[in-house]
Amino acid sequence: MNFKMVLKSLGILLICEAIAITPSLAVSGIYNDGAMKSFAYTLLMLIAAGLALINLKPQSKSIYARDGFAIVGFGWVLVSFFGSLPFYLSGSIPSLVDSFFEAVSGFTTTGASILTEVESLPKSILFWRSFTHWVGGMGVLVLTLAILPSVGAGTLQIMKAESPGPNPGKLVPRVGKTAKILYGIYFVITVVQIIFLIIAGMPVFDACIHTFGTVGTGGFSSKNISVGAYNNVFAEVIITVFMLMCGANFSLYYQVIKGNFKALFKDGEFRFYIGVVSLSIILITIDLYGNIFSSVGESLRHSSFQVASIITTTGYSSTDFDKWPIFSKLILFFLMFIGGCAGSTGGGIKNIRILLLIKAMKTELMQIIHPRAVYPVRIGGRAVDERTLSEIKSFFFAYIFIFVAASLIVSLDDFDIVTTLSSVAATLGNIGPGFAVVGPMGNFSAMSVLSKMTLSFAMLIGRLEIYPILLLAMPGFWKKVSI
Amino acid sequence: MNFKMVLKSLGILLICEAIAITPSLAVSGIYNDGAMKSFAYTLLMLIAAGLALINLKPQSKSIYARDGFAIVGFGWVLVSFFGSLPFYLSGSIPSLVDSFFEAVSGFTTTGASILTEVESLPKSILFWRSFTHWVGGMGVLVLTLAILPSVGAGTLQIMKAESPGPNPGKLVPRVGKTAKILYGIYFVITVVQIIFLIIAGMPVFDACIHTFGTVGTGGFSSKNISVGAYNNVFAEVIITVFMLMCGANFSLYYQVIKGNFKALFKDGEFRFYIGVVSLSIILITIDLYGNIFSSVGESLRHSSFQVASIITTTGYSSTDFDKWPIFSKLILFFLMFIGGCAGSTGGGIKNIRILLLIKAMKTELMQIIHPRAVYPVRIGGRAVDERTLSEIKSFFFAYIFIFVAASLIVSLDDFDIVTTLSSVAATLGNIGPGFAVVGPMGNFSAMSVLSKMTLSFAMLIGRLEIYPILLLAMPGFWKKVSI
Repeated sequence: MNFKMVLKSLGILLICEAIAITPSLAVSGIYNDGAMKSFAYTLLMLIAAGLALINLKPQSKSIYARDGFAIVGFGWVLVSFFGSLPFYLSGSIPSLVDSFFEAVSGFTTTGASILTEVESLPKSILFWRSFTHWVGGMGVLVLTLAILPSVGAGTLQIMKAESPGPNPGKLVPRVGKTAKILYGIYFVITVVQIIFLIIAGMPVFDACIHTFGTVGTGGFSSKNISVGAYNNVFAEVIITVFMLMCGANFSLYYQVIKGNFKALFKDGEFRFYIGVVSLSIILITIDLYGNIFSSVGESLRHSSFQVASIITTTGYSSTDFDKWPIFSKLILFFLMFIGGCAGSTGGGIKNIRILLLIKAMKTELMQIIHPRAVYPVRIGGRAVDERTLSEIKSFFFAYIFIFVAASLIVSLDDFDIVTTLSSVAATLGNIGPGFAVVGPMGNFSAMSVLSKMTLSFAMLIGRLEIYPILLLAMPGFWKKVSI
Repeated sequence: MNFKMVLKSLGILLICEAIAITPSLAVSGIYNDGAMKSFAYTLLMLIAAGLALINLKPQSKSIYARDGFAIVGFGWVLVSFFGSLPFYLSGSIPSLVDSFFEAVSGFTTTGASILTEVESLPKSILFWRSFTHWVGGMGVLVLTLAILPSVGAGTLQIMKAESPGPNPGKLVPRVGKTAKILYGIYFVITVVQIIFLIIAGMPVFDACIHTFGTVGTGGFSSKNISVGAYNNVFAEVIITVFMLMCGANFSLYYQVIKGNFKALFKDGEFRFYIGVVSLSIILITIDLYGNIFSSVGESLRHSSFQVASIITTTGYSSTDFDKWPIFSKLILFFLMFIGGCAGSTGGGIKNIRILLLIKAMKTELMQIIHPRAVYPVRIGGRAVDERTLSEIKSFFFAYIFIFVAASLIVSLDDFDIVTTLSSVAATLGNIGPGFAVVGPMGNFSAMSVLSKMTLSFAMLIGRLEIYPILLLAMPGFWKKVSI
């Protein structure tokens, strides 16, 4: 492990966070909401810590896979800790554990909240809370790679460790340029959605908040009852479309920009994702019609919004879906596990993995019928190699394993089973709200400190796709080895 | 597919069921309980159908893998159908769907019931209901292989398709002899437990019923509130020990009989199984003490009984565990998925698979740290080959996939989420009772016909480890191929 290089990289990351916090400082100044000092102090601490680390002089500038995981694992914990300081210092959230939970929830684009009342918070605190979604959505380290000069070789290792999906790819040979392109697309989508929401009648501030929550697939709102507070069909449709857009692989948009429009329809994962979304919307619409809403339109409106919100792991609500029939709720519950596409801002297991697992299951059956034949698993016409398939299958088990372990810890709080299981599914999958106590009209405030810390780490584990956080806890990770 | 040979084998199976039903006919005569006619009619139908099929003259006597799966898949459906006739014809269960559910639940050693009142049923009906556990525990086809002359080559294919576990092994070169040895051990264990229960003070009839339910890891009782009705600590201890014994791999007992006592402690799966059982008992005892029971002894008594009952997928209850704290209930819920050991009478995913999945997850982490090193997954000192590991991982996904699909169908009944999920987990894992409506003091009677049929097939899919039943539904399974 190249410790000095890891620390130096963390220093750059903190400087990047200092840059990311300045807009909130400005917002605080504009609204004169009394939270300015908390941002200023945080900014100073970030710069001080960042500069101290940056000035380290590593003997080698190489970053290997292990270093990449260490940077990403520690980086996210550190960024969340500093990110929680404005909440704590401004007095908006009196407990440090709660502040950390809220910051992790922000950066991991989960959107689970311990706040019972958000509408009375200082504007700048609301802004920062939602802006963490925007930063975390595409990745804090990808952001660093995009805006700050790289200090060493091996930045691909960092990107690999942070980017979701089984095949994190560079769009162009240079990592820094790839990061810039991704953030460029992300920025344009963000600006377009803000404009659309303003046209739909949302105040400018609210439009920004809900855009950050949408494009980062986060889900924090400036309203206690989320998007439902506006009762604005146009805004809901805009948010639905943008959630779905940001739950898809961003490299597809790069293909489209380059003129390759067919890429969208040829992509196996994208087709599966759209298929799951469409089927879920249809089934829930049928279930809701007559049961919850008296018109097909109303049923379709809320089922589309909620399906998009859950599968993309955003977590906004247009209505209290905790009151829906069990069939609809279970569909939403299982969508929490599927999540977005690889290379999107969404969480969960990811569509590509689920798709390949289903295909692998089919080949397993074919293999029984014809034991001597060979059935490769194909996607987009190409065979997926055994190693990748094996990793995906292990990932699935690891995901369920973490889900079980975290559920057992949270169950010590003795909430009901639905609250317990859905609180873990909703944090591990970076969705936000679950059902019952942690439902769309509820929050995580009643949980114990142990549960809040467990769920905070569940969010980090989910966002970083399990391994970076687990590795930090493994003794073997720290042992010296000859490379 | 060798259709004639498949049908002929099914004929032999029905003759075997005819033999298996005669003790119940005798019981009916002894108690003169009015159910005799229903058994006699069923017996005649079995013999008629059996003889008709046996007299088919196949051109080839070979049985290949596909034929084995077809025999097992259809065999279990057929045996369950005929096994349900006594319930229906005697009027004990007025609906054919309910009778089928009860018979499938019996043969698959699930023990889920649609009956609200069992104590008033004819003795012979109770006897048959529990005897199906005994027959199904070790396998109806294994029984056929053990007691009837084989008609063709390839009986190993049948045993492979029916026996649980990733490595179904022959104990001795001849399949028929292996089946005889297995049933021999099983028979001795059965007799010993009956004697023990009688010594503990249970009436002879009740001792038989509860022994069938224990050694088959089934769980049907002759009492409405299960084993708890006796409030007999000795009987509970005996049942606990025998449940745990029958949840372990029977080939270990063969090793022990041959004098290889170390086999038990050297077996990786057995050690894992005992580890999970011990840890669960300790955690639940701590959780119950002071919360539910005022003494450590009482807490330990019920936690041991319930852990053994659930992990072995038996499903007896000594108390209403649905009233336990959420932590204890969640442990039990997750144990439903783990289940017994390979080669036991228990259901679920099986300990060996969970153990190997955990080991594979660890090697995945080691692989990230040292990308160029090779880390084989080992059990009992031997490396597990990639193909087996890959199959196990696919099996895990397939199990969860079936769980999700069945839950969505059952959720249409709009019971609460806990009832819905636990009813599927408890039938797919062949446990029996779940929580809430289908808890230890409840039953499955309130479910719709669709749910009952879905759960019946979940029981079959779980008992036969997914593939035989799924294959029957695949078009490719029926296509002619050159071998």
